[in-house]
Amino acid sequence: MPFPKADHDLPIGTGAAGVRIETDAMGEVEVPAEHYWGAQTQRALQHFAIGDDRMPVGLYRAYGIVKQAAALVNAEAGRLDPNLAAAIVHACEEVAEGSLDEEFPLYVWQSGSGTQSNMNVNEVVANRASQLLGGGLGRDRIVHPNDHVNLAQSTNDTFPTAMHVATLLEVRDGTLPQVLALAAAIGDRARRWAEVVKIGRTHLQDATPLTVGQEWSGWEAQLRDAAARLEQSLTAVCELAAGGTAVGTGINAPEGFGEAIAAKLAELTGLPLVTAPNKFAAQGSLDGMVAVSAALRGVAVALMKVANDMRWLSSGPRAGLHELRLPENEPGSSIMPGKVNPTQQEAAVMVALQVIGEDSVVAAAGAQGNFELNTMRPIVIQNVLHSARILGDVCGTLRVHSVEGIELDEKAVADYVDRSLMLVTALSPHIGYDKAAAIAHKADHEGSTLREAAVALGVDAADFDRIVDPATMVGDPRRDFGL
Amino acid sequence: MPFPKADHDLPIGTGAAGVRIETDAMGEVEVPAEHYWGAQTQRALQHFAIGDDRMPVGLYRAYGIVKQAAALVNAEAGRLDPNLAAAIVHACEEVAEGSLDEEFPLYVWQSGSGTQSNMNVNEVVANRASQLLGGGLGRDRIVHPNDHVNLAQSTNDTFPTAMHVATLLEVRDGTLPQVLALAAAIGDRARRWAEVVKIGRTHLQDATPLTVGQEWSGWEAQLRDAAARLEQSLTAVCELAAGGTAVGTGINAPEGFGEAIAAKLAELTGLPLVTAPNKFAAQGSLDGMVAVSAALRGVAVALMKVANDMRWLSSGPRAGLHELRLPENEPGSSIMPGKVNPTQQEAAVMVALQVIGEDSVVAAAGAQGNFELNTMRPIVIQNVLHSARILGDVCGTLRVHSVEGIELDEKAVADYVDRSLMLVTALSPHIGYDKAAAIAHKADHEGSTLREAAVALGVDAADFDRIVDPATMVGDPRRDFGL
Amino acid sequence: MPFPKADHDLPIGTGAAGVRIETDAMGEVEVPAEHYWGAQTQRALQHFAIGDDRMPVGLYRAYGIVKQAAALVNAEAGRLDPNLAAAIVHACEEVAEGSLDEEFPLYVWQSGSGTQSNMNVNEVVANRASQLLGGGLGRDRIVHPNDHVNLAQSTNDTFPTAMHVATLLEVRDGTLPQVLALAAAIGDRARRWAEVVKIGRTHLQDATPLTVGQEWSGWEAQLRDAAARLEQSLTAVCELAAGGTAVGTGINAPEGFGEAIAAKLAELTGLPLVTAPNKFAAQGSLDGMVAVSAALRGVAVALMKVANDMRWLSSGPRAGLHELRLPENEPGSSIMPGKVNPTQQEAAVMVALQVIGEDSVVAAAGAQGNFELNTMRPIVIQNVLHSARILGDVCGTLRVHSVEGIELDEKAVADYVDRSLMLVTALSPHIGYDKAAAIAHKADHEGSTLREAAVALGVDAADFDRIVDPATMVGDPRRDFGL
Amino acid sequence: MPFPKADHDLPIGTGAAGVRIETDAMGEVEVPAEHYWGAQTQRALQHFAIGDDRMPVGLYRAYGIVKQAAALVNAEAGRLDPNLAAAIVHACEEVAEGSLDEEFPLYVWQSGSGTQSNMNVNEVVANRASQLLGGGLGRDRIVHPNDHVNLAQSTNDTFPTAMHVATLLEVRDGTLPQVLALAAAIGDRARRWAEVVKIGRTHLQDATPLTVGQEWSGWEAQLRDAAARLEQSLTAVCELAAGGTAVGTGINAPEGFGEAIAAKLAELTGLPLVTAPNKFAAQGSLDGMVAVSAALRGVAVALMKVANDMRWLSSGPRAGLHELRLPENEPGSSIMPGKVNPTQQEAAVMVALQVIGEDSVVAAAGAQGNFELNTMRPIVIQNVLHSARILGDVCGTLRVHSVEGIELDEKAVADYVDRSLMLVTALSPHIGYDKAAAIAHKADHEGSTLREAAVALGVDAADFDRIVDPATMVGDPRRDFGL
Repeated sequence: MPFPKADHDLPIGTGAAGVRIETDAMGEVEVPAEHYWGAQTQRALQHFAIGDDRMPVGLYRAYGIVKQAAALVNAEAGRLDPNLAAAIVHACEEVAEGSLDEEFPLYVWQSGSGTQSNMNVNEVVANRASQLLGGGLGRDRIVHPNDHVNLAQSTNDTFPTAMHVATLLEVRDGTLPQVLALAAAIGDRARRWAEVVKIGRTHLQDATPLTVGQEWSGWEAQLRDAAARLEQSLTAVCELAAGGTAVGTGINAPEGFGEAIAAKLAELTGLPLVTAPNKFAAQGSLDGMVAVSAALRGVAVALMKVANDMRWLSSGPRAGLHELRLPENEPGSSIMPGKVNPTQQEAAVMVALQVIGEDSVVAAAGAQGNFELNTMRPIVIQNVLHSARILGDVCGTLRVHSVEGIELDEKAVADYVDRSLMLVTALSPHIGYDKAAAIAHKADHEGSTLREAAVALGVDAADFDRIVDPATMVGDPRRDFGL
Repeated sequence: MPFPKADHDLPIGTGAAGVRIETDAMGEVEVPAEHYWGAQTQRALQHFAIGDDRMPVGLYRAYGIVKQAAALVNAEAGRLDPNLAAAIVHACEEVAEGSLDEEFPLYVWQSGSGTQSNMNVNEVVANRASQLLGGGLGRDRIVHPNDHVNLAQSTNDTFPTAMHVATLLEVRDGTLPQVLALAAAIGDRARRWAEVVKIGRTHLQDATPLTVGQEWSGWEAQLRDAAARLEQSLTAVCELAAGGTAVGTGINAPEGFGEAIAAKLAELTGLPLVTAPNKFAAQGSLDGMVAVSAALRGVAVALMKVANDMRWLSSGPRAGLHELRLPENEPGSSIMPGKVNPTQQEAAVMVALQVIGEDSVVAAAGAQGNFELNTMRPIVIQNVLHSARILGDVCGTLRVHSVEGIELDEKAVADYVDRSLMLVTALSPHIGYDKAAAIAHKADHEGSTLREAAVALGVDAADFDRIVDPATMVGDPRRDFGL
Repeated sequence: MPFPKADHDLPIGTGAAGVRIETDAMGEVEVPAEHYWGAQTQRALQHFAIGDDRMPVGLYRAYGIVKQAAALVNAEAGRLDPNLAAAIVHACEEVAEGSLDEEFPLYVWQSGSGTQSNMNVNEVVANRASQLLGGGLGRDRIVHPNDHVNLAQSTNDTFPTAMHVATLLEVRDGTLPQVLALAAAIGDRARRWAEVVKIGRTHLQDATPLTVGQEWSGWEAQLRDAAARLEQSLTAVCELAAGGTAVGTGINAPEGFGEAIAAKLAELTGLPLVTAPNKFAAQGSLDGMVAVSAALRGVAVALMKVANDMRWLSSGPRAGLHELRLPENEPGSSIMPGKVNPTQQEAAVMVALQVIGEDSVVAAAGAQGNFELNTMRPIVIQNVLHSARILGDVCGTLRVHSVEGIELDEKAVADYVDRSLMLVTALSPHIGYDKAAAIAHKADHEGSTLREAAVALGVDAADFDRIVDPATMVGDPRRDFGL
Repeated sequence: MPFPKADHDLPIGTGAAGVRIETDAMGEVEVPAEHYWGAQTQRALQHFAIGDDRMPVGLYRAYGIVKQAAALVNAEAGRLDPNLAAAIVHACEEVAEGSLDEEFPLYVWQSGSGTQSNMNVNEVVANRASQLLGGGLGRDRIVHPNDHVNLAQSTNDTFPTAMHVATLLEVRDGTLPQVLALAAAIGDRARRWAEVVKIGRTHLQDATPLTVGQEWSGWEAQLRDAAARLEQSLTAVCELAAGGTAVGTGINAPEGFGEAIAAKLAELTGLPLVTAPNKFAAQGSLDGMVAVSAALRGVAVALMKVANDMRWLSSGPRAGLHELRLPENEPGSSIMPGKVNPTQQEAAVMVALQVIGEDSVVAAAGAQGNFELNTMRPIVIQNVLHSARILGDVCGTLRVHSVEGIELDEKAVADYVDRSLMLVTALSPHIGYDKAAAIAHKADHEGSTLREAAVALGVDAADFDRIVDPATMVGDPRRDFGL
């Protein structure tokens, strides 16, 4: 069948109203005529109306790239008419850039392989490509969803492929830059306050001093380490199932199709994509996604610690620790006038908890594979993309609306150091642990200063003043920060 | 200030375009003039743009009822001008019935108390009530979000109250009826197949027989038990924090306000609501929500077992168990023509895993309370309402699109019984466990029938035929089903 | 076969060394002669040497009661020789009271039904009963593990039954009393400090005041509510699978056996046990255990909040909140002399996290049932009994070693109230939210007192003094405590 | 103080009975005289008697190496008397090799920093070293637990260091070799059955064929990938906190101590250990442990899929899939004679679920850090070492007692291929998806063979026989396996 040349300037839109008849292997279905989708999409809309959770748009955009790559590879190998391929490629580009987002209405909770969403893409691309070629939609279309758009493919290899591409794009372009920007903003403050001595706290109890910059450098390091692990985890999803088709053997795909489509996808996305060395593992498992999810969780775990520290250190203003003063973004209370709350940090803690929980869903789903397919794919892509998104976003709002505006309450910071009993630690190498402990206890129980208690227990006052100097107890922060 | 009488027929809509100046305790903010919301909502839209997760609409509708009850109680006690109260009540009814859903745009990830969403409600109700009273919006409004709509209330007591009401309504009207309808549909088939003998399976391995009806009755019982536990769990959220205001002491609320508003809410909703006996626990914890979440998880756990059994029993058609034949709702594969998959069951398994994971979020959030407030409220209501919703919905689609159309493959069912070696169990009381085991092993290793092996090992053939009768091994299914 | 009369005074012990030959349906096995266990136990010791996790002793003791009840019911119905039954009952009593604990060496990680542990009990009881009857052990024993001890039973109905009994005993006798004792100790302090006014904290930020007693009453209420829910959850495991035998049909058990053994177990344990109305659900699911586990988690969630509050309120002594002074049980640091840490609270938080995690294991395992059996039983009983145990124990150590010795730092408590800006809330009903907010902001930014700022903004000093009285902002604590 | 030369041949044992007085900074305590531990250990035994969970022995052995390294570094720098150092080193070696395991009785649930366990090590080493030097124990000892054994250290840097070393040793020497051995055993069978064609299954439903070897190769690949990710995760714990002392600043430790002790530990263990670049992150977080835990979970997720596939494929023997025949290790049922169950696979599934749950505990604990210390250390090391252990062990038992003995049921395997309808997929490129679907449906509904249905619908019989050849549908397995 020679296909007519496509008109690539034809604007998107069916130009029709009412309903259109679409068919699939099971028969006819009425679909809304203004939409491009076909029979299987329409069936799925009716059979899977569960909640409001729509398959994430990022998955479809990635799927557009996958279908585009397949068409290009098929055309280059002479398996697909060039004009038809051009029309399919054009339609896929529209999918990939988001111009057809409204055509993908299906719910997350569908076939565990994502078959309905693959067919949704096949149907929309087929109808749109047919339109570009001057053909009709539905029964009159001249591009077949399965025989052309899905050529040499199965849901079972393309859905995992689209999942990987979608995940890579979201994490590379969304999550990672935001996490690193937050780390950088924290690092800026660490350097600014590199030499401000403050009291340390372990077990929530007063400990020996460190500098504010050192404390913030710990937060920065946690976030940077977590980001590095996240980036590293991505190698697990750079391996693609495409080419395995139905069960991993590549039935109905030509020899070398997996390598070719991976190379094409790498070219189209700039990602270091390769064909999975073992397609049975690639399709039977979701292990790569579980690994990325774990790395997202790693960011959440670090973020939760950082956010919690910030909200505790800004507690008060009069009955809390209040070493930090957070920006006042909004009235804190509907009943208590003038209240300021650490709302960005609370949002960050909630996001962290959500990500940790969604990761547990991913792991549980990842363990539920059977034989040649793990049919827990929609739930996994939904949770991973959602976690990646909210994690990146909250790093952004936390940075812009809080971290960049945090100020020190320098008086509070200094007072705590002055009052602390744990400076006694510096005496320990000179007078021994047990005598040092006696001094701290005496001061605590009598409410005296450490110096008073030390002298009362026989420490020479001059020795005390020389040894118990907080500034000498913090190591060398100037060196830590390269100052 | 005497308030003008409200015109309750004034249609919803500000009739304005462009922007309007709104103010709060921190100053002025421009808001889109076509919306009713005010300064704090607008600030929050900017500060908390995290993902696409909007606070669930069910929470706002319940909040409408809570604000309505508060206005009524305040008016009855003479603390609120009757005309103003009437306008507020009217606006609240519009919120409760969903007519103002578009006015609540905020994200889940905000202040951990839900302050922004409470203020969103206060602002929308204040502006709408002001409009009903002939007043303006924003600076010109004659109803104050805090002093009038929030009168005698705090976010800290009303947000938990709205959470409880929203949860009760969703579970009572959505989840529970759907779970019970699924159980009933299963029960219908249990009775239909009460006496069809089939092989039992334990450890996935052949075991002694039971009837198909008995197997299905187990599924029905699991779902009914889980539903009963869910219903029972609701008592934990029938206790309301309202009246505790800022920290549980009831500051700025009059004596008896908690009892009065609980009674009013019970009247408005038909729910058995009471004031929480200890407001410090009610506001400092989320324990009641954690208990309901656990009960939702209980339904998910049961549903997952039922759905898994169904999909395994329908596996095949030629290389699986295939005792059941599921309705064919859609083509199962984009590459394998004619394939039918257990898609409703897969959706149910995914929903179950999601609910189990969301419950883990709820528990983690529930454990993060500090002092007089647990500030993990938005994440908890989001997850609980979402779980309740998708669990109910999937019970519905599973029932309608699968369970009600399931048929038996009676030939397969009968063949398995005929072939089974575990019927030998009935011989055990007569010849002893060890000899019975020898018979089973012989048949297994030789590929013979059980009867052949038994006779070869000395069992009298007539005895065998009398004792090894599957129909006598299934107890009394007629009695079980009251037939 | 007439069995000889048993000598019930025969002390425990085989009196043998070296090895003994034991047999089962698969042949001969050498077992250590000093032990009572038989062939299947020995095989399992070799096949399942995984970690150090032994099946919990509480499960075996409960199994002893179950086997005892079965023997009594069988004997009363004339199915079991009275002398043999008496010997079995005697051996079972020894199992139940813990005298044979050393005879149950198997690992948790075994057959998912617990078959090896059931056979371990059957073998030990058979050999011990044989010994009591004057018979030998192993090949010479006159009591058969399957035909006598396991008569009318299967692992599939007795293991779940033993799980339920073990859980009920551990929770009733261990967990619940400890949780309630902790609640009572907290309640004692609540009453002692009923009228001590302190600052409230929400979002970790200063809020309006409450009394110390009110705060503690919230903790007490959380624990009592969680305990009540735990107690209520136990009804789910008062239903017993016994009588269902292999697949729930009761094959090889007589009519009425389920009812009879449940009644006998109720009599032996004092627990309100009944036979499960649907044995297919009872054996195919673990839903009752999942419900109890969720209730244990509920206690953990409450405990974590209480323990966290305590450790934050005792933070300091000089750079924290330090409203509470915890007992000093041990040196807090190996390097910082004189440090006191909230170690009991930290242990409680860790236990809470462990219980929450073990509950997630139970739910996941509960969802993995297939057909007529959920074969995730050992993992479930292990986690539930462990959680119940450590939860009860830590409530005990927290109470004895910390709560009962906690003192108030009354000066710190009072100072915070004096300094707080949130007392401004009481002005709000008199001067409006917005003006009150302006006062709080002014005081905060200028570091002045609330009174100074209020007067500067036009509030009459006498009005201020009358209205802003913390003691009037805490409701009526005397009434709350019935003083 | 010049210390006497140590007698390194003095056998372990105090040679005393009754009690001995030990002292610490809080006073005197009686300890059992036969033990080496001191006052703080004894206090902790009384204060933290929670469950039966003892701090894992692997942690103490690693701690022995850490203390040994510290003593060596201190001695080399002249901070510690050489004789005293030699005695300490000797005692530490005894700890490291397990000779003093009985001296470490403490519970997991203790101070969240592990202070009691650090002091337990300090006390035991001090007393034992004192004994080696000819000194006494307790009050008479000439080695001080804090001033000598703990010199230049804190719990806060050494406990995390010991955690990392213990984790590295357990995973390197236990988990990884066992996972890889299992993968290798699976790979052996994959190669053996490289060309045996079997039916594929997706959605549990019949799909296109693959070879048995291909299916097994997927399992091998999953396990090898998971092992590789586990190995990679270890880099996160090769960074050591030692040198940070109390809060990360290194107070009371000399400049360069961190680098020196890391180098010494690398030398003693053969592990690529380095000092953590940021000690504030290293002590304030547990992020490295969370990453390793996630990788252990990755192995569990893969293992669960593999074990589930094996037990389903061996289901039957007469009413299941039964492509595989598992070794019969033990009687499968106490009531059903001759039953064989997939018990190793069930154990593996349970272990996998336990590991997944324990990982969730680790993540939750990892997120609970505050300020300069994450005080959730004992719970994390307990769960990580436990998971690593049972995961490794079950890979071993599954391999030895099941995988290495699995046989194919070749007749069943072949029959399924012959009967399958999904071979129709190969026709699809020739006749189109829709017509191929019609053939499959016809065969399914009429119970006919695919060939019969195809011919009836117009496919040429010779074409059918040429195209529908299962052996041509499996790709090139010989190439896959390098045959």
